[in-house]
Amino acid sequence: MSELFQLVEIDKIPDFFEGKLAVNLATEKINITKAKARVLARDIISQIDLPPFSRSTMDGFAVKAIDTFGASESMPVYLDLVGEILMGEEAEQEIKAGQAIKIATGGMLPKGADAVVMVEYTETLGEDMIEVFKSVASRENIVVKGEDIDQESLLLKQGHLLRAQDIGALAGIGITEVEVFVKPVVTVFSTGDELVAPEESPKLGQIRDINTYLVGSLVEETGGTVNYGGIIADNKEELKNKIGASLKNSDLVILSGGSSVGTKDLTIEVLNELGEPGVLVHGISIKPGKPTILALIGDTPVIGLPGHPASAMTVLKIVGTPIIQKLAGQELNQFQGSVSAKLSRNLASDKGREEYIRVKLVKENNQLWAYPILGKSSLITTMVEADGLVKIDLGKEGLDQGEEVQVLLF
Amino acid sequence: MSELFQLVEIDKIPDFFEGKLAVNLATEKINITKAKARVLARDIISQIDLPPFSRSTMDGFAVKAIDTFGASESMPVYLDLVGEILMGEEAEQEIKAGQAIKIATGGMLPKGADAVVMVEYTETLGEDMIEVFKSVASRENIVVKGEDIDQESLLLKQGHLLRAQDIGALAGIGITEVEVFVKPVVTVFSTGDELVAPEESPKLGQIRDINTYLVGSLVEETGGTVNYGGIIADNKEELKNKIGASLKNSDLVILSGGSSVGTKDLTIEVLNELGEPGVLVHGISIKPGKPTILALIGDTPVIGLPGHPASAMTVLKIVGTPIIQKLAGQELNQFQGSVSAKLSRNLASDKGREEYIRVKLVKENNQLWAYPILGKSSLITTMVEADGLVKIDLGKEGLDQGEEVQVLLF
Repeated sequence: MSELFQLVEIDKIPDFFEGKLAVNLATEKINITKAKARVLARDIISQIDLPPFSRSTMDGFAVKAIDTFGASESMPVYLDLVGEILMGEEAEQEIKAGQAIKIATGGMLPKGADAVVMVEYTETLGEDMIEVFKSVASRENIVVKGEDIDQESLLLKQGHLLRAQDIGALAGIGITEVEVFVKPVVTVFSTGDELVAPEESPKLGQIRDINTYLVGSLVEETGGTVNYGGIIADNKEELKNKIGASLKNSDLVILSGGSSVGTKDLTIEVLNELGEPGVLVHGISIKPGKPTILALIGDTPVIGLPGHPASAMTVLKIVGTPIIQKLAGQELNQFQGSVSAKLSRNLASDKGREEYIRVKLVKENNQLWAYPILGKSSLITTMVEADGLVKIDLGKEGLDQGEEVQVLLF
Repeated sequence: MSELFQLVEIDKIPDFFEGKLAVNLATEKINITKAKARVLARDIISQIDLPPFSRSTMDGFAVKAIDTFGASESMPVYLDLVGEILMGEEAEQEIKAGQAIKIATGGMLPKGADAVVMVEYTETLGEDMIEVFKSVASRENIVVKGEDIDQESLLLKQGHLLRAQDIGALAGIGITEVEVFVKPVVTVFSTGDELVAPEESPKLGQIRDINTYLVGSLVEETGGTVNYGGIIADNKEELKNKIGASLKNSDLVILSGGSSVGTKDLTIEVLNELGEPGVLVHGISIKPGKPTILALIGDTPVIGLPGHPASAMTVLKIVGTPIIQKLAGQELNQFQGSVSAKLSRNLASDKGREEYIRVKLVKENNQLWAYPILGKSSLITTMVEADGLVKIDLGKEGLDQGEEVQVLLF
């Protein structure tokens, strides 16, 4: 049976889960200093204008722009200097025609003024007069009240992943606590009779579990909270009990291992028995990573990753990331960081699968080269040596030496 | 005085700090499940071979490759099936000429075997014989002992920023606790008489502090531990006391604000009085961000960022990141994630400065366009709207509409 299944294309995977995942996300309130990389649970509408008053963006003199028209080096305009705005103080004095008030960057623009002349284009004559050598337009060198953020305007949308500048903007409008979605809990299991925990000494025939830690780190990076479920033996009862128990307190369950046909069939059997609709996808058109299983038990998704570490990581990055982001309530991130490089050698590809080649980046004479790492996907060091992945699209026969490629960075 | 200084080019900045920063970094031991994005304090030399024995990478039969030579669909080779390797068990039986042993993916290769024939190219005849339809080469479909990681070999270097695959590899060789550098402590201040903390209600003329939170978030993202120092008034004594006190328990001090000439001069005076060598750089050839101050007091660096949020963020990303990475003991990351896009309009540039344009990315008919955000650098929303920065090199007059640009992602 396992040999007859139809491979599912990567682009089609979201359709299987569309509208079927749990969407009632819990929220929590946290201080903005802890909010980096968290997902907003509510739209942020500003209650205030920012700035709350018009401000100077330069050191100089607040003026009525119209008073400076025609001013030049040879024909300066003379204005009465009637005061100074102190930083952090209200500008109480109103400016009248022919007058100027000294102001520093960030100072509050006085009533009557609509522009600031930079100090570089002025000269002070005694204590109560300035010469202006350059005209300014209305609104020049100032930020008007509400120009940055309007009262009642939408600053940030629900689902937005908070970045440093967003946190700065929240501070700017007086929000120090923000409601974010609780991170989805992802239970991670490794399966296989040959596995032991890394702190144990493996006997001959046994091997330490790599995938739990690889997968756990990647899940955390993607915005999930990891529940380390440990190792499950290739045994139907244990598989069913452990996966079944984890469903209650998990938003997503990720298994890895079981790449042999027998254990893969066992996993499929168990997932189908645990609840409807069961296994949705069994085999995807990606290389490495073909023997991937996607299931849904009730509204809890289960991802069965291949056992080889490089395959598991590739599938989790490409297929798992959008699922985790969806569960985190996050708007899908369309822009993944990459760098351009030239490919160091020809690469043939299996036309029937979207292929991800591990590459190492090397700079030679100011040109970045991507060197494919050609080891087996069972070797974790092929990922350790790699700086990123080069994608060969489905249906493409390969890539040529010297071709410009985009390297998706880890 | 402030108007006469020479702008320092970005590329020259590292020279000012070369060999002058504190390098005796403290270390701590942490569990690998917490080690993502931490910096290794020691080289990791493997104490074991991984895998610790030769393994199969396929479901099939362990054989002597030489026994399969010449096998084809029309001329199969017949081998005696003498047993089965159980997963996680030692392969005790030795294979002899003309023999095969059943093995699953990950199973231990028995003595005498040097390859695995995939089950797809075999047929089982009764209980003690198989037909083989395709020859295998020695080492085909197996991973030999130590092929992934050799005993005594260097797996990861001191200074390496740990990624998911590195953590997986550490688990694989039995390392669950790892020695990393303690994160550098970065004290962040905002300066300015006009500033109030975001939880306060500003009076007219006052404005909430944005930069502390923007800078703090970015520092954390870059690998530092933030010590929130609060707001300092534009007052020489307070500046000197607060910066002076922070030097003792900081690996780096970052000030922002003080963009007006008077307060900038005050900051320079204070930094020069606090200790040798004092201010190293005063004004850098970047836009936005020209009025940046770089100082060294003893071996503690101080960065004085401009007050405008977009300027502060640009300078911190471009100039501050390598300084923080250096203090974190991290090998400098040469590859920054970016995406290619076409520029939506012509952009003129100041030839004398390296310029960073904030852009929003928009996908139209499968083409990614970078739309410059042309607001003032005093507006935090210009950064909130932006997806990244486009660099215009020093000496370049601008960029053309439709030109392919690299957008440095936030």
